Amino acid sequence: MIKVGVVGATGYAGEEVIKILIKHKLVKITELSAVIDKEEPISSIFPAFKGKIDIVCKKPNPEAMARGVDLVFLGLPHKVSMELVPIFMKAGKLIIDLSADYRLAPEVYKVWYGAEHKDKANLPAAVYGLPELYSDAIKKAKLIANPGCYPTSVILGIAPMLKGKVIFTDTIIADSKSGVTGAGRKPDLALAFSEVNENLKAYKVNEHQHKPEITKILSEVAGKAVDVVFTPHLIPMNRGILSTIYLKLNKKLDTKAVVDIYKNFYKGKPFVRIADEGKLPQIRDVVFTNYCDIGLKVTGDTLIVVSCIDNLTKGAAGQAVQNMNIMCGFDETEGLI
Amino acid sequence: MIKVGVVGATGYAGEEVIKILIKHKLVKITELSAVIDKEEPISSIFPAFKGKIDIVCKKPNPEAMARGVDLVFLGLPHKVSMELVPIFMKAGKLIIDLSADYRLAPEVYKVWYGAEHKDKANLPAAVYGLPELYSDAIKKAKLIANPGCYPTSVILGIAPMLKGKVIFTDTIIADSKSGVTGAGRKPDLALAFSEVNENLKAYKVNEHQHKPEITKILSEVAGKAVDVVFTPHLIPMNRGILSTIYLKLNKKLDTKAVVDIYKNFYKGKPFVRIADEGKLPQIRDVVFTNYCDIGLKVTGDTLIVVSCIDNLTKGAAGQAVQNMNIMCGFDETEGLI
Amino acid sequence: MIKVGVVGATGYAGEEVIKILIKHKLVKITELSAVIDKEEPISSIFPAFKGKIDIVCKKPNPEAMARGVDLVFLGLPHKVSMELVPIFMKAGKLIIDLSADYRLAPEVYKVWYGAEHKDKANLPAAVYGLPELYSDAIKKAKLIANPGCYPTSVILGIAPMLKGKVIFTDTIIADSKSGVTGAGRKPDLALAFSEVNENLKAYKVNEHQHKPEITKILSEVAGKAVDVVFTPHLIPMNRGILSTIYLKLNKKLDTKAVVDIYKNFYKGKPFVRIADEGKLPQIRDVVFTNYCDIGLKVTGDTLIVVSCIDNLTKGAAGQAVQNMNIMCGFDETEGLI
Amino acid sequence: MIKVGVVGATGYAGEEVIKILIKHKLVKITELSAVIDKEEPISSIFPAFKGKIDIVCKKPNPEAMARGVDLVFLGLPHKVSMELVPIFMKAGKLIIDLSADYRLAPEVYKVWYGAEHKDKANLPAAVYGLPELYSDAIKKAKLIANPGCYPTSVILGIAPMLKGKVIFTDTIIADSKSGVTGAGRKPDLALAFSEVNENLKAYKVNEHQHKPEITKILSEVAGKAVDVVFTPHLIPMNRGILSTIYLKLNKKLDTKAVVDIYKNFYKGKPFVRIADEGKLPQIRDVVFTNYCDIGLKVTGDTLIVVSCIDNLTKGAAGQAVQNMNIMCGFDETEGLI
Repeated sequence: MIKVGVVGATGYAGEEVIKILIKHKLVKITELSAVIDKEEPISSIFPAFKGKIDIVCKKPNPEAMARGVDLVFLGLPHKVSMELVPIFMKAGKLIIDLSADYRLAPEVYKVWYGAEHKDKANLPAAVYGLPELYSDAIKKAKLIANPGCYPTSVILGIAPMLKGKVIFTDTIIADSKSGVTGAGRKPDLALAFSEVNENLKAYKVNEHQHKPEITKILSEVAGKAVDVVFTPHLIPMNRGILSTIYLKLNKKLDTKAVVDIYKNFYKGKPFVRIADEGKLPQIRDVVFTNYCDIGLKVTGDTLIVVSCIDNLTKGAAGQAVQNMNIMCGFDETEGLI
Repeated sequence: MIKVGVVGATGYAGEEVIKILIKHKLVKITELSAVIDKEEPISSIFPAFKGKIDIVCKKPNPEAMARGVDLVFLGLPHKVSMELVPIFMKAGKLIIDLSADYRLAPEVYKVWYGAEHKDKANLPAAVYGLPELYSDAIKKAKLIANPGCYPTSVILGIAPMLKGKVIFTDTIIADSKSGVTGAGRKPDLALAFSEVNENLKAYKVNEHQHKPEITKILSEVAGKAVDVVFTPHLIPMNRGILSTIYLKLNKKLDTKAVVDIYKNFYKGKPFVRIADEGKLPQIRDVVFTNYCDIGLKVTGDTLIVVSCIDNLTKGAAGQAVQNMNIMCGFDETEGLI
Repeated sequence: MIKVGVVGATGYAGEEVIKILIKHKLVKITELSAVIDKEEPISSIFPAFKGKIDIVCKKPNPEAMARGVDLVFLGLPHKVSMELVPIFMKAGKLIIDLSADYRLAPEVYKVWYGAEHKDKANLPAAVYGLPELYSDAIKKAKLIANPGCYPTSVILGIAPMLKGKVIFTDTIIADSKSGVTGAGRKPDLALAFSEVNENLKAYKVNEHQHKPEITKILSEVAGKAVDVVFTPHLIPMNRGILSTIYLKLNKKLDTKAVVDIYKNFYKGKPFVRIADEGKLPQIRDVVFTNYCDIGLKVTGDTLIVVSCIDNLTKGAAGQAVQNMNIMCGFDETEGLI
Repeated sequence: MIKVGVVGATGYAGEEVIKILIKHKLVKITELSAVIDKEEPISSIFPAFKGKIDIVCKKPNPEAMARGVDLVFLGLPHKVSMELVPIFMKAGKLIIDLSADYRLAPEVYKVWYGAEHKDKANLPAAVYGLPELYSDAIKKAKLIANPGCYPTSVILGIAPMLKGKVIFTDTIIADSKSGVTGAGRKPDLALAFSEVNENLKAYKVNEHQHKPEITKILSEVAGKAVDVVFTPHLIPMNRGILSTIYLKLNKKLDTKAVVDIYKNFYKGKPFVRIADEGKLPQIRDVVFTNYCDIGLKVTGDTLIVVSCIDNLTKGAAGQAVQNMNIMCGFDETEGLI
């Protein structure tokens, strides 16, 4: 039984981490913090937690929190995480950071997030927490850079083909559709119900900050520079990301052959499910779960991949717990199925 | 052809007034203003207006606006309207105020809106703009206090029974359900898509600021003090209010008799439609229209009234235009059917 | 570890029972059936179940199923359950019936469901499965009539006041709002997305078949005949029921006193949570849980009760599992928190 | 003033045609028909029409209807239209057919719609009713094949580049997202609220029956065979289609140059609005209007086009009225702005 803290407990990702950990058999939540007006039980802030967990959510004090935990989840805005990580690292605690602060090289970070990186010392220690690709490194990691939601859905949808070197690497298109929780819990007119409902839009076309994260990891997988045209869309639903990915095959393959490539690639990975030929995944099959469901269809020399996740689970909190399970030697699926 | 201005052009009600006036044959929009960062064409702010109207939305300058209009719609937050009304009154312009500032006596206003009234001089001139009850006064009015959305649906649903003196006046219950635009266009976490969608709640139970407006007008109709238990609810939809009203009959009446009372009461009123016995209205029949649809059912000594409006049309902008039509001697339905 | 079967595995309630039982430590699902075209793994019918459960969903054969189970959940349409119950009763199996077939006296059933009851022999053995009121009987029951969703929310919201004899029993109003899954999984134009979304309506006003169930149980609680005016509404959301209940107090009580009455009444009941004075429940706090959250407010001699449940969990499948836990001597909350 | 009939008056497209024609100054609706149980006023079927139109909706009798109209809109399922068209053609009436029956060559029709064409005689007379491309032919047409909703959004988004011969014609990808009314008004479990809401899926990937319509028209525009990879998605909203289109440039062009190409191409076309560089359209700006809003962005050698319409207006009924206006010599925008 390890002691766990959640920083940023009142955001969507933080709330979701708590919800998952409440049912986790090998973990005890001992510390919660958030930027709040007054310290009160988390069950007063989220009445849904009444009867399930009643510890107090405190104002941020990382040094104090570090004394009460073995591992900490950071559900913080970008740029804030890198101020806290050094404190927990120094205290020798395991860290799972759900922000983007430890996912990119500092010069790329500066371009896309508009800020100098403040903790270059710990950056090299950070492991990208996508367990289907990096489980060996995760096992030994002290600091996890938990992947973004869009990158999780896109990378898992493309990796098998890149690894197999059966697609061209310069004509990859990822058309992603996300529910609204992906934007976080905050007062923002653009996220108001009456602005989002009965509406649909593309945004930050090929300029979204998740693009460099996608290309960085895909390039590592391919062993060479990979570019992606990435278009995110905002969908009037709470949770879920569906990425429709268009790949050009560099050799003749039919749908069945491609399905086999994916099934082999993800063999033994408990959270990736490949649909049989002729079937396609949908959001309702993955929502509130840690699964990534992938469907495949070849037409001519084009492979269409449909990749579905819950943005708050496999795209954030669930994947964070999956990483914790691997780091701590627990069953990878504990608390998640 | 009269010249019209809209103050608060970027709110939901202001936007809706513009949308209606664009199709109105006897009106020309000459002035728009709102609290904005830079002055630009309204069609840049709302691309939906491209090709339909292209005048510039200016920063607020009521004195200047008054020179360019015959009539002005004020789509402003409460407490702001009463600072502008004196300016337009002094300039001799017709005013339709969509805020609550001129709906209540100053001592009641202070209790429910938490502020001293700043324009007591013009208060007596204000006419409550519910045309189905006050059309004679509206014809002669210079200043209209346009009704609130909840009061419109509730008052129209009860007035015929109060007028007929066939219900007890101390056991009136109005259970109202509103779409989200009723709360206005503003960044507010409680109105965020992911907080409202797949959710439902009652709020301000019997403490909503529309309660004194409802009881004031119903008391005028009844000729004696009337009390109402009023519970508003927030529904995950953009537009529409459905009020389910429970009344105790003081004499034996069946549904058919009650339907006749309502049909007689609203005879010649173009925007109230009474459903035949056995039928009930629904939001989709009134949304984007200025209609109030009412259905009725008697069970024992209880009359259940279901009253439906579009909160932004009959509950705000449409009713405002209806008032303008009456004030200006236009056909009451011009621009609205 | 008991062996459990689910009849009607492809309906919303059946699917939900399976979802809950997958995580239940003391139960093994051994049999699933439904009216389907071909027998196939339930994970082919619901891809969400892939990797979690893979037994085959068979065509209905109750005699065969009875041989493979200790307890059976019936998630069937009304009128179908009473054809299967005798078979499982004869085989000596525990039965939890989610339909209305065993909730009412046969003469009342005939009026509201339009059919003669076909299993009057077993009717007397049926226990109404609302654990907060009938746990002693449930412990010894062989056949549970699992409550309807509306009745669960309404009865739990009124019972403490009736038991305390502090309200008038002839002026009870229940205004209920339900998500769409309450109507079951079936092709029906009235339930189509584009008919329900951005819409809102009252239906079957005081004529809904759940009304006699509500009055029957409330009359048992009160020890005398109780009548209720019951108005259901259809809300554009998937899950959840919020009932706003209006009660007339027959003695002076303030909100705090009423809150205390409810907290005392539900002391030790793990699934009812009473909000403190000044707070109100909302659907998002109970959705996907077995909780019933209740908020209270007194105004004059009126008590307004807001009662929230998830219609598929506390209103159907969750309550069914809660009943199973009690019947089998398990912890009442196993699988449910 | 011409006399107009609507066949299929109770479908979404038929209802929408009526809604538009009610406000049209040069048209009188004289006949309505649909497959219904009993003939009754259309305002009894759609209470929203009460007070606006009260003619009776009859059972289908095309010969009789033909005697009472100058022009007829057919809002019918595929395969039914081609049984009625010969009757109206013989009677010398103008026809606007909203089905797919007259959009394709008979051999292609057979492949995609699974039926032999029954009215090959009139096929050559049919003009594809996309006014931005075929207005000259529409002026002289007797029979209009009104375009499908997806094809309208996709073709308008690609045509300027094909006409300019500045893209490769073998790597066109159209990723389209549609609201639910696009599937028509019918009882269908897949379209039930609780199946579609909080869900998202791709369907009929590159196998949708609108694909051959898209490639046929684009090939005509290009003057050579064009192929398109077309993926439709179902979005939880009532109305609207947003198509994100990926084109490969065959010469160097920046966003500004492309915006100019589109603005020139659609000069004088009142219903296509091209967003300035840096801006993107969204569904809320076109919903309930006949506009197609297009936004453009070049990245490397890829042009991303975002094309938005209301599927029931520009994608069906609005475009049908636009075609009528052109056929009858009315102002192209009458009834539509």
